Amino acid sequence: MDNKIKITFPDGSVKEFDKGVSAFDIANSISKRLAEEVLVAQVNGVDKDLYAPINEDSEIKLFKFDSDEGKKVYWHTTSHMMAQAIEELFPGARFGVGPPIENGFYYDVDSDKKFSDEDLKKIEDKMLEISKRDLKPHRVEMPRLEAIEYFKSKRNDPYKVEILETIAKDEDNVSLYEQGNFTDLCRGPHLPSTAKVKAVKLLSVSGSYWRGDENRQQLQRIYGISFPKQKDLDEHLKNLEEAKKRDHRKLGQELELFMISQMVGSGLPIWLPKGAIVRQELENFLKNEQFKRGYEPVYTPHIGKIDLYKTSGHYPYYKESQFPPLEFEDETGKKEQYLLKPMNCPHHFQVYNHKPRSYKDLPVRLAEFGTVYRYEQSGELAGLLRVRGFTQDDSHLFCRQDQLLDEVCNVIELTQFVAKTVGLDNLNIRLSFRDKENKTKYGGTDELWDKAEQDVKDAADRMGLNYTIAIGEASFYGPKIDFIVKDSLNRKWQLGTVQVDYVQPVNFNMEYTGADGQKHRPVVIHRAPFGSMERFVALLIENFAGYFPLWLAPVQVMVIPLTDAHKEYARGVFEKLKDEKIRVSLDDRNEKVGYKIREAETKKVPYMLVLGDKEMNEGLVSIREHKKGDTGKMELNKFIEIIKLKVSKKDISY
Amino acid sequence: MDNKIKITFPDGSVKEFDKGVSAFDIANSISKRLAEEVLVAQVNGVDKDLYAPINEDSEIKLFKFDSDEGKKVYWHTTSHMMAQAIEELFPGARFGVGPPIENGFYYDVDSDKKFSDEDLKKIEDKMLEISKRDLKPHRVEMPRLEAIEYFKSKRNDPYKVEILETIAKDEDNVSLYEQGNFTDLCRGPHLPSTAKVKAVKLLSVSGSYWRGDENRQQLQRIYGISFPKQKDLDEHLKNLEEAKKRDHRKLGQELELFMISQMVGSGLPIWLPKGAIVRQELENFLKNEQFKRGYEPVYTPHIGKIDLYKTSGHYPYYKESQFPPLEFEDETGKKEQYLLKPMNCPHHFQVYNHKPRSYKDLPVRLAEFGTVYRYEQSGELAGLLRVRGFTQDDSHLFCRQDQLLDEVCNVIELTQFVAKTVGLDNLNIRLSFRDKENKTKYGGTDELWDKAEQDVKDAADRMGLNYTIAIGEASFYGPKIDFIVKDSLNRKWQLGTVQVDYVQPVNFNMEYTGADGQKHRPVVIHRAPFGSMERFVALLIENFAGYFPLWLAPVQVMVIPLTDAHKEYARGVFEKLKDEKIRVSLDDRNEKVGYKIREAETKKVPYMLVLGDKEMNEGLVSIREHKKGDTGKMELNKFIEIIKLKVSKKDISY
Repeated sequence: MDNKIKITFPDGSVKEFDKGVSAFDIANSISKRLAEEVLVAQVNGVDKDLYAPINEDSEIKLFKFDSDEGKKVYWHTTSHMMAQAIEELFPGARFGVGPPIENGFYYDVDSDKKFSDEDLKKIEDKMLEISKRDLKPHRVEMPRLEAIEYFKSKRNDPYKVEILETIAKDEDNVSLYEQGNFTDLCRGPHLPSTAKVKAVKLLSVSGSYWRGDENRQQLQRIYGISFPKQKDLDEHLKNLEEAKKRDHRKLGQELELFMISQMVGSGLPIWLPKGAIVRQELENFLKNEQFKRGYEPVYTPHIGKIDLYKTSGHYPYYKESQFPPLEFEDETGKKEQYLLKPMNCPHHFQVYNHKPRSYKDLPVRLAEFGTVYRYEQSGELAGLLRVRGFTQDDSHLFCRQDQLLDEVCNVIELTQFVAKTVGLDNLNIRLSFRDKENKTKYGGTDELWDKAEQDVKDAADRMGLNYTIAIGEASFYGPKIDFIVKDSLNRKWQLGTVQVDYVQPVNFNMEYTGADGQKHRPVVIHRAPFGSMERFVALLIENFAGYFPLWLAPVQVMVIPLTDAHKEYARGVFEKLKDEKIRVSLDDRNEKVGYKIREAETKKVPYMLVLGDKEMNEGLVSIREHKKGDTGKMELNKFIEIIKLKVSKKDISY
Repeated sequence: MDNKIKITFPDGSVKEFDKGVSAFDIANSISKRLAEEVLVAQVNGVDKDLYAPINEDSEIKLFKFDSDEGKKVYWHTTSHMMAQAIEELFPGARFGVGPPIENGFYYDVDSDKKFSDEDLKKIEDKMLEISKRDLKPHRVEMPRLEAIEYFKSKRNDPYKVEILETIAKDEDNVSLYEQGNFTDLCRGPHLPSTAKVKAVKLLSVSGSYWRGDENRQQLQRIYGISFPKQKDLDEHLKNLEEAKKRDHRKLGQELELFMISQMVGSGLPIWLPKGAIVRQELENFLKNEQFKRGYEPVYTPHIGKIDLYKTSGHYPYYKESQFPPLEFEDETGKKEQYLLKPMNCPHHFQVYNHKPRSYKDLPVRLAEFGTVYRYEQSGELAGLLRVRGFTQDDSHLFCRQDQLLDEVCNVIELTQFVAKTVGLDNLNIRLSFRDKENKTKYGGTDELWDKAEQDVKDAADRMGLNYTIAIGEASFYGPKIDFIVKDSLNRKWQLGTVQVDYVQPVNFNMEYTGADGQKHRPVVIHRAPFGSMERFVALLIENFAGYFPLWLAPVQVMVIPLTDAHKEYARGVFEKLKDEKIRVSLDDRNEKVGYKIREAETKKVPYMLVLGDKEMNEGLVSIREHKKGDTGKMELNKFIEIIKLKVSKKDISY
């Protein structure tokens, strides 16, 4: 019997090891440094503890903290350490669930103690002490029934018992993780040692109902985050501070960009003039780019008969995320049901279908800034990001199969161009494909899907995209390309998607006459480079911390006369700029100049023109640029020229 | 006893006549020609038969056919003549109501005879015969009960009896008009003789329920029109023919401007690309003009909580013309009711109220192309004119009382400018004031109303408007100015209105801090120069018979290569034009040139560029202008210059 197994690495290289080797040993065989840094292994696609023995030929991936997989395990173990610390400090605490999240982790705690900021500090200290104990989380597998008995008798923990009796009820065996005196029900994997956790911060406590049910026990959800280095934690906390300052809800109010009126309704933002200008500029920009690329505008109503959404398959399947139907009887007694449109596609399909199409007419590219309405729970609504009404920069392209690759490339190019124009060139791209093991989730034939996924991949390759592939993330009607940008604080934002659709052309019986005289089905591409105006503007606000680039700035220039004697000259400058279609304000209030300048700075106006005797007599303007301060005097016409050039170039340098 | 009375004419001059003089005599005393042409008189504001004796000092106005009042009486008498003709030709017919309408008259007839086109011709001939009989309509007044007896026994007419017993039930005395053997229940007045009616045309027959109740007798409604001269009738019929050709529903389909999809819903137009371009250009034009005039954009949602409309007073009072509320319970069990917004005002009021305002901040001018939804009976829906969803070019101006006059003038100027830009300079203006006798219909104090009406009148005077005043036509919250344009077929279209509003500022508790440090109420002006995009585009389609001016034309230039050999050159021309943002199409199909030209003409494309050897070799384009035909060759750059100049000037000369 051969005691050797073959280990294949991500680069394709293969090495032999003794059977029973651990991922840690494998890392160690490569370099001591890797062994120190590696946190978790993926063995044949399954995440495993580093010390787990490997007994057969396997493909292996090793993850450090710089990967999503590494962070997940790191924060997961930290959440167990927090529970352990709480148990030691506040005996009698019971624990709900404690998963890693996008940034850090939380644990839901049932304790008589109401945790204060001081308590959180104590828990942090205890966690660092547990780190120093260098405990090795140890996996124990046992029959589920035995585990129930264990949590009933040994840990007296009703929450884990309930999980074992409900969520896990179909499993024969379950796993527990022990570290020192603390044992938790957990799938794992975990870090090789608590000592890996060097820096920790507990961020906040909030209420959370057990299993999301408001009729059940309210637990305390403690959020935290941890890092291998204090420096990284410090930077993260600084970014969190900065993010708070940049919160689009805060800046949206300070800069008067949008409002939520409780008289109109939650989750229904009203765009105030300054926000509306930003949105309008973005819309005009995209309309112009779309014109160049052969898109045609349409306008469609915000309601549609319910049968339209039955045809598309959105009703009743997505009923939960829609507003209820409007029902009435018309004067002839006919019963009608209308829905607020949750998406624009079915409306655009009517446009495609309104006349016979020939292969020569394709592609048809229909575009609309279409406002859609979806139902979100009121507790989830926030600013411009979780809303009940939003405007998509929506478009549907109808093309032949042989045009699909080109059209997908064109759409990728446009999305990249749009992101780059506002300085977001840090794009992550995800190709979302179907899960072949779970075909019932998807419409269309295997053949079409294979072709579509290949086309999407070919397009991504042709465009030189650096992408990941996410299996099972496709929409039900076809594969998609998701664009995720990183903002200036390194936070990820999902922008629009490009979706290839083979199902709706069938549902709506779309056709064109081919060169062969026969009827064929077009393919539909759904796309929205911004995603939605609300989300995109929220991203811009936070990314730019409210300092919009000149072409988007609601007020581009503030004219400030030094005294009453300069008001007339200032008004002339103001009128001249306005005639040139520059967005200008005149601050001729009887306030001190310093006060006016500070206020214009607070409003984040890119340029101030301060006008006194010298300027008036010589026909000049003195320029004060945001962040740069005074940048000298020049003739008004010269200044106008500079502004207009910057705007037309969509300069984002300031 | 003095047997003389004083008659005051519209120009203020006064003449004495014998007591008992008739309006006809008065006209005759001025000129024989006037006596021939005058049709009806207004004595102290009340319309009177020409032969009615005048027994006291009176103000008098005399109306000929060229006035609305004259036409009304002319067509009213003609409708009696039609009924008389029917009675003579088809004994046993009974008659419902027979009023004059905007263009002509109708009468609802109950007859076993189903009227054919041939019958209508016979009736016309009989009417002309009645005209020749020179019958003098003669007014008879009698107690209502006597009239009931008369219509029961003498005329055996259940319809008139019902009118006398229901609609007229509060009147002691009623009037009948006799002409020859025909007698009708009628308030009058009527023409002095049937001989005045020289030319008559019966246009159509349609079904109509007695008193609009579908459970009652269906009558035949016969429409007709008449004129003092055959020439005028001929012209009118020609215009009717032309109007049919220009019907925006017909052209909307032929030119692919909009569609109604039964899957989306009746009365919910979808703007096809070509119509959407026209709308977009109009919107951009107005946005630009609004920017110049200090308007600020906003975007507001298409739904709002029902309480918003209770506050504004629109719900439940205008419930009948609204879609029913959307009702649901949120996750906390809170019951919510939302309405599709029937108007934008309450949303804009939220913007005004979102922060404290100072007298220095006013006026605030908020503008939005806001789509609103109103319920219309399905039987009434038609094209872009009777719809359930439409987009208003809406704006609300919030100003101080001392700014109102200026602001109203500015709004009038903008409305005139907008109409003039599309060549509609034939504007009728109506000032709609309150009816002081019926004050319960209106909000606000007498003092405010007097001031507001005076301001509206002053503004109209300052702008040199030629207006009429309509008492009782004000909206419930203030006086308004209605703009009515005449199109190229002399048909009237109501465009937008300007409304002064003192009531909503109270309902929504709007305030500003005055120079005195006290709180004051702003005045609100509602305005929409287009009225709605749907109505305005319908008007433009019909006015221009589909030949949009260059700046609005969906396709401005059609490039047509003569043969395959010229396709490449044609594509270059096409790309060049497109780069210049000209809306250009390339027709490179393998069809004959003559066919392509005819098709471009059918599509009403303003310019065609036909490109053959000569053009290709010399780098020229041959221009074919719509309606003008070939207008020569020129360099492409020169052509581009001409086009861009025409577009930027919004030239409508073609």
